[in-house]
Amino acid sequence: MARRYDQRTTIFSPEGRIYQVEYAMAAIRHAGATVGILASDGIVLAAEKKTIAKLLDSSKTQAEKMFKIDDHVVCAVAGITSDANILINHARLSSQRYFYTYQEPMPVEQLVSQICDTKQGYTQYGGLRPFGVSFLYAGWDSQFGFQLYQSDPSGNFAGWKATSIGGENSQVAQSVLRSSYKPDMQLKEALELALKVLTKTMDRSNINSEKLEFSYITRKDGKLVYHLFDAKELDDFIKATDLGQESDDQ
Amino acid sequence: MARRYDQRTTIFSPEGRIYQVEYAMAAIRHAGATVGILASDGIVLAAEKKTIAKLLDSSKTQAEKMFKIDDHVVCAVAGITSDANILINHARLSSQRYFYTYQEPMPVEQLVSQICDTKQGYTQYGGLRPFGVSFLYAGWDSQFGFQLYQSDPSGNFAGWKATSIGGENSQVAQSVLRSSYKPDMQLKEALELALKVLTKTMDRSNINSEKLEFSYITRKDGKLVYHLFDAKELDDFIKATDLGQESDDQ
Amino acid sequence: MARRYDQRTTIFSPEGRIYQVEYAMAAIRHAGATVGILASDGIVLAAEKKTIAKLLDSSKTQAEKMFKIDDHVVCAVAGITSDANILINHARLSSQRYFYTYQEPMPVEQLVSQICDTKQGYTQYGGLRPFGVSFLYAGWDSQFGFQLYQSDPSGNFAGWKATSIGGENSQVAQSVLRSSYKPDMQLKEALELALKVLTKTMDRSNINSEKLEFSYITRKDGKLVYHLFDAKELDDFIKATDLGQESDDQ
Amino acid sequence: MARRYDQRTTIFSPEGRIYQVEYAMAAIRHAGATVGILASDGIVLAAEKKTIAKLLDSSKTQAEKMFKIDDHVVCAVAGITSDANILINHARLSSQRYFYTYQEPMPVEQLVSQICDTKQGYTQYGGLRPFGVSFLYAGWDSQFGFQLYQSDPSGNFAGWKATSIGGENSQVAQSVLRSSYKPDMQLKEALELALKVLTKTMDRSNINSEKLEFSYITRKDGKLVYHLFDAKELDDFIKATDLGQESDDQ
Amino acid sequence: MARRYDQRTTIFSPEGRIYQVEYAMAAIRHAGATVGILASDGIVLAAEKKTIAKLLDSSKTQAEKMFKIDDHVVCAVAGITSDANILINHARLSSQRYFYTYQEPMPVEQLVSQICDTKQGYTQYGGLRPFGVSFLYAGWDSQFGFQLYQSDPSGNFAGWKATSIGGENSQVAQSVLRSSYKPDMQLKEALELALKVLTKTMDRSNINSEKLEFSYITRKDGKLVYHLFDAKELDDFIKATDLGQESDDQ
Amino acid sequence: MARRYDQRTTIFSPEGRIYQVEYAMAAIRHAGATVGILASDGIVLAAEKKTIAKLLDSSKTQAEKMFKIDDHVVCAVAGITSDANILINHARLSSQRYFYTYQEPMPVEQLVSQICDTKQGYTQYGGLRPFGVSFLYAGWDSQFGFQLYQSDPSGNFAGWKATSIGGENSQVAQSVLRSSYKPDMQLKEALELALKVLTKTMDRSNINSEKLEFSYITRKDGKLVYHLFDAKELDDFIKATDLGQESDDQ
Amino acid sequence: MARRYDQRTTIFSPEGRIYQVEYAMAAIRHAGATVGILASDGIVLAAEKKTIAKLLDSSKTQAEKMFKIDDHVVCAVAGITSDANILINHARLSSQRYFYTYQEPMPVEQLVSQICDTKQGYTQYGGLRPFGVSFLYAGWDSQFGFQLYQSDPSGNFAGWKATSIGGENSQVAQSVLRSSYKPDMQLKEALELALKVLTKTMDRSNINSEKLEFSYITRKDGKLVYHLFDAKELDDFIKATDLGQESDDQ
Repeated sequence: MARRYDQRTTIFSPEGRIYQVEYAMAAIRHAGATVGILASDGIVLAAEKKTIAKLLDSSKTQAEKMFKIDDHVVCAVAGITSDANILINHARLSSQRYFYTYQEPMPVEQLVSQICDTKQGYTQYGGLRPFGVSFLYAGWDSQFGFQLYQSDPSGNFAGWKATSIGGENSQVAQSVLRSSYKPDMQLKEALELALKVLTKTMDRSNINSEKLEFSYITRKDGKLVYHLFDAKELDDFIKATDLGQESDDQ
Repeated sequence: MARRYDQRTTIFSPEGRIYQVEYAMAAIRHAGATVGILASDGIVLAAEKKTIAKLLDSSKTQAEKMFKIDDHVVCAVAGITSDANILINHARLSSQRYFYTYQEPMPVEQLVSQICDTKQGYTQYGGLRPFGVSFLYAGWDSQFGFQLYQSDPSGNFAGWKATSIGGENSQVAQSVLRSSYKPDMQLKEALELALKVLTKTMDRSNINSEKLEFSYITRKDGKLVYHLFDAKELDDFIKATDLGQESDDQ
Repeated sequence: MARRYDQRTTIFSPEGRIYQVEYAMAAIRHAGATVGILASDGIVLAAEKKTIAKLLDSSKTQAEKMFKIDDHVVCAVAGITSDANILINHARLSSQRYFYTYQEPMPVEQLVSQICDTKQGYTQYGGLRPFGVSFLYAGWDSQFGFQLYQSDPSGNFAGWKATSIGGENSQVAQSVLRSSYKPDMQLKEALELALKVLTKTMDRSNINSEKLEFSYITRKDGKLVYHLFDAKELDDFIKATDLGQESDDQ
Repeated sequence: MARRYDQRTTIFSPEGRIYQVEYAMAAIRHAGATVGILASDGIVLAAEKKTIAKLLDSSKTQAEKMFKIDDHVVCAVAGITSDANILINHARLSSQRYFYTYQEPMPVEQLVSQICDTKQGYTQYGGLRPFGVSFLYAGWDSQFGFQLYQSDPSGNFAGWKATSIGGENSQVAQSVLRSSYKPDMQLKEALELALKVLTKTMDRSNINSEKLEFSYITRKDGKLVYHLFDAKELDDFIKATDLGQESDDQ
Repeated sequence: MARRYDQRTTIFSPEGRIYQVEYAMAAIRHAGATVGILASDGIVLAAEKKTIAKLLDSSKTQAEKMFKIDDHVVCAVAGITSDANILINHARLSSQRYFYTYQEPMPVEQLVSQICDTKQGYTQYGGLRPFGVSFLYAGWDSQFGFQLYQSDPSGNFAGWKATSIGGENSQVAQSVLRSSYKPDMQLKEALELALKVLTKTMDRSNINSEKLEFSYITRKDGKLVYHLFDAKELDDFIKATDLGQESDDQ
Repeated sequence: MARRYDQRTTIFSPEGRIYQVEYAMAAIRHAGATVGILASDGIVLAAEKKTIAKLLDSSKTQAEKMFKIDDHVVCAVAGITSDANILINHARLSSQRYFYTYQEPMPVEQLVSQICDTKQGYTQYGGLRPFGVSFLYAGWDSQFGFQLYQSDPSGNFAGWKATSIGGENSQVAQSVLRSSYKPDMQLKEALELALKVLTKTMDRSNINSEKLEFSYITRKDGKLVYHLFDAKELDDFIKATDLGQESDDQ
Repeated sequence: MARRYDQRTTIFSPEGRIYQVEYAMAAIRHAGATVGILASDGIVLAAEKKTIAKLLDSSKTQAEKMFKIDDHVVCAVAGITSDANILINHARLSSQRYFYTYQEPMPVEQLVSQICDTKQGYTQYGGLRPFGVSFLYAGWDSQFGFQLYQSDPSGNFAGWKATSIGGENSQVAQSVLRSSYKPDMQLKEALELALKVLTKTMDRSNINSEKLEFSYITRKDGKLVYHLFDAKELDDFIKATDLGQESDDQ
């Protein structure tokens, strides 16, 4: 049945579905899982890296899945990276234009909402395909404090306490998050939970810094700090975290 | 027969139907039911939430199905949320532009009419799909007082005393409304009727604040007040309302 | 045969037909019948309402099928209401722009002609569908007095003494009009003829104000008056009119 | 064979035909026949009316098939009237713009040529259909005196002494014209010939003013006069003209 | 094979052919033959007329197949006349714009080249069909004297001493031209040769001014003269020319 | 397999081929062979003419396959001449605009590169077909001296010492060039080699000036000279060159 | 399955793939392998040439696969050269515009990112095909020193220490790079490794300067130097490098 309605971006199927958007979501499932957790003192973003290329020059290029949009917002992506780049560039410009106009940081939700309006447009106009990318946005503003948002290719978005996008085992990731998340978590616990979630969805034998990307935002001295783990730091953190037991209990 | 005419947004079938609009309405049936009831002292908007995610950060993001357009108009949506966002943004801008130009709130019907003209355009021009969203608009203006409108993906709209959109059992909802609506209802009765309608169309065993969204507008001290129930308030209201008997009688 | 030529708005079939326009006319047949009758002292517009919704808030919204374009022109529609809204908005703007420029009301035929040019364009350009709506226009201007026009989705229009659009039994309606219309009719007789025509094409058992919409224009004290019947007035008129006998004679 | 090349306006078939133009001509054959005859003292335009609607308000609307473009040019149409309206509006504007610029009437051939360029464009560009209408133009200018032109949907045009467009029996009409036309005809004879031609192509039993439209242009006191027959005048003329004998001889 | 590549104007077939251009050439073969011959003292353009309509008003309209572009260039067309009109209008404007800018006549080849660039564009862009018309251009400029060019629907053009376009028997025409053309011909001989060529390709029994169109350009008193034969002149010329013998010898 | 990917200009087949570009190359194979040879004192361009029309007016029109772009660059074309005209016009304008801006001739490679960018665009955008033409460019600039470039419909280009385009036997032409080219050739030898290459790929019995076009550029007195052989000169050159023996040896 | 989703550039298949991008990558596999290696004192770019044409005039035209974008960035391409030209022109302009605006060289990553945004756009909009070309960019800026980036037709890019694009045996190339790359390599070793990689993927019997292109960037006296090997230099380098042993060991 789908066959007749899935080749144009701008039509509904008789059941009211827009297949191109659903297929774009499939592109995201192929990407590694990405987890976001809202702690009381910050937000953790963590991702599984699929392309493990020994010769990638990680020292100079930015992280593979984490992008800084502005001083107060970062994001993690799952899906087609070149699609993500376009949206991130838009977001950076919007954020700076807002600051330039109003002389204060753009509210996080407004920034997310704007990106999502762009995403929506690509699902409604002919001659375009949807953006094949989902985002986790971690940001802080003076009105709502730390905020974690998730958006998908349809342009839908919502605020979450903890969520994951991408990955073949996203059901597992969601269920671990639901069972283990505690509203009053500290960043440290949130980092451990993120690691626990990712290891549940990956082959556990070789969890190391080559396969993972970890970052968090927090506030220090009244300023937002974005920290991206380097390889050594990440490997130390993995070793320091006792995964085996917990995960067997699950 | 439909097969040959349902893949383009801009054509009529031999029977004079525009299938893409009808399919867009199917997208709305998948959404949870949304009810609007006009009381003598205000308007109730209530909706069933489909995505019950424990970790959604409801404290910071706005309601899932209720949106404030301006100080004198709010709306409830059923259908594709990212489509709704686009139209709501348009509506907000229109309403503020009107206020800026005429220094008085935009008449509710005019605002609704404008959104519907946009909706209609997307059913007539090629390379676009209709907006997959229906709205209930609750507003107040000095000329007509409280007004409740409903619009659908074709761009059609009308004023109602009580109506529901979305949901698989919309026939049931409509019939409960017809049998129980009284023109001189107070807000309190209207809230109870809304709850009664929604429980009729849902699995009654676990009706609680996680599955419902309730709001109303009323006037206090010459100003319009928009009230969105928080979880505790909603659960209290549900407990306080005697549903069982009435619904069995029906 | 039609199959190969009916999926594009802008092509002729080998017999010189434009199927999309013919299909748009089918959309109009689904609508309730609408009747217009030119009397010596005014014009009657009357329509059958298809959506009989008890909870429609008729007190605040305008009539379902009658729209005022300007002080000197009103119209009745049959077909897709959201399509009609677009054209009516255009017409209102045109009429006001004309008045603003020339400081006198726009001649009725010129207004009708302009709407029809828009309609025609939508039958000739690709990527558009025709407007699925027919109109009856009732107007008065100082040059031609009372005038009744009818337009269809192709953009064709003509002046009529009495005519009907829409409805499954339009043949019946036309034939009643032909046999009973008298050139020197007064408004009262015209109203009765309109009722007679509509009852012929409807299920006669439950003719009442919920199923009908009646209006007329006339001139009083040198000004055009547009009168839309309210429910009570309409029910009284129906009761006062002796339908049974006449219709059996037919 | 035609099947593969007749669904797009802008392509040639292997034999060098443009089917959409040919199909547009079919639309014209469905229309009633229209005849134009150049007399020494004027030009006759006469047409068969297909829609014989007793209730058409002929007193107020213009003729069904005759349109005045400017003081010195009138036209008769065969085909889709709403298409004709668009072209006639263009022509009226062009003619007035020309007068405004040069302070003299637009030469007739230049006016015809301009309309035909528009027509041609609609046969060459994609996403458009040809105008489904043929015209007879009757005009007078100081350089060439009385002129009769004919144009078809392809945008082709030529000057004629006598010609007919539309109608199922156009062969008959053309042959009557050829055999009976005399170069030195007066308007009166031309009117009779026009009637003779039309009666040959129609059902002769009920030839009357309801089925025909007659007009002519002539010059009086140095000014062009356009005369459209009213019903009485036309019926009188028909009675006064002895049709029976002649037509049997033919 | 052709089937799959002949329905779009802008694609090559696997053999490198553009079928739409080839089909447009077929449109030209349906037209009557047109002959151009370069004499030492002028250029002859002669054509067969296909539509022999006794009632065509040839006294007022221009020739059917000969068009004057400017004082120094005329052309003869074969193919779709309404397409030709568009290109001739362009050419007239170009030529006058050139004169206005440089105060001297546009060089003939430059004018031809410009028309052909337009023609080429219509074979390369989607949503257009090629112009279905070939031209013979006869012109004179101070640099190259008399020049005869031919262009086809692809936009190809070349200078010729004698050539023919259109007509079903174009092979015959070309071969007569090749065998009988002499480089030092005078206009008179060229006219006779043109007549000989056309009679070879037509039904010889009724060669007369109704079926032919003859013209030439020459220079008199330092000015270019364009002469189009009227009916009497042409018939006299035909009678004066001894066709029978020669053509049997051929 | 090709079938599914060869009807749109802008798509890749699964093997990464763009069929429309390959088909455009087929259009070039139908053209006669064109040879370019870089000598130490100039560049030879020579071509086989396919259309041997005795009556072509070669005295006034430019060569059929050789075009001068500017004083320092000429080109020879193989393929669709009307496509070539468009690109040559662009090139002429570019070259003159460059000179106007910088007051020195446009570097040859830059000119070639610009034409090729245009060519490339027509292979990437929908609704266009590639230009069906290959070029040999012969030019001289002060930086690189004599340069010979070749471009194809894809927009690819490269500098060559000797090369050939078009013609059914292009393999033969290339192999003769490879075996006989010497880097220190003089123009005279290059002319002879060009003749030898062309005779190898043509029917040798009737090699004469009607079937060939020869030209070269060289420098005399510090200025670039472009010489195009006239018929007599070419025939003399052919006779003077001993072809028979050599070609049998090959 | 692919069949239904691979003919439009802008749609997702049900598995979330964009086939046109994948097919564009196939175009790159047909190209010769291109290798980039980051050394401590520079970057090596080396490529296999597929078109080995003895008569190519390599002295005057630029390298076949290496292009200088600006003084601080060069690139090597694999895929469709005419596509590459377009992107390189864009890059050159961007780089110079940046320098003009900020008076310092454009950061390498920003330049790469900009090209990739253009590439991405061609995979998302209808009526375009992706650019069929991958790049290796070698650049130096004051912030990050030497940087080697790779981009593909999707617009994806990343920084690498050593990588290869194109070529049928790209797996082999990648594996040789992984096993032999050392982070502290000097340019000389990097050149030898590049040669080793290319010889592994080619027919080893005839490795010479006709089949290879080698270049490197390094810094001398505080300035970036781009060196492209000429034929002699390259042959000497090949002879001087002991390939046989090593490659057999592998």
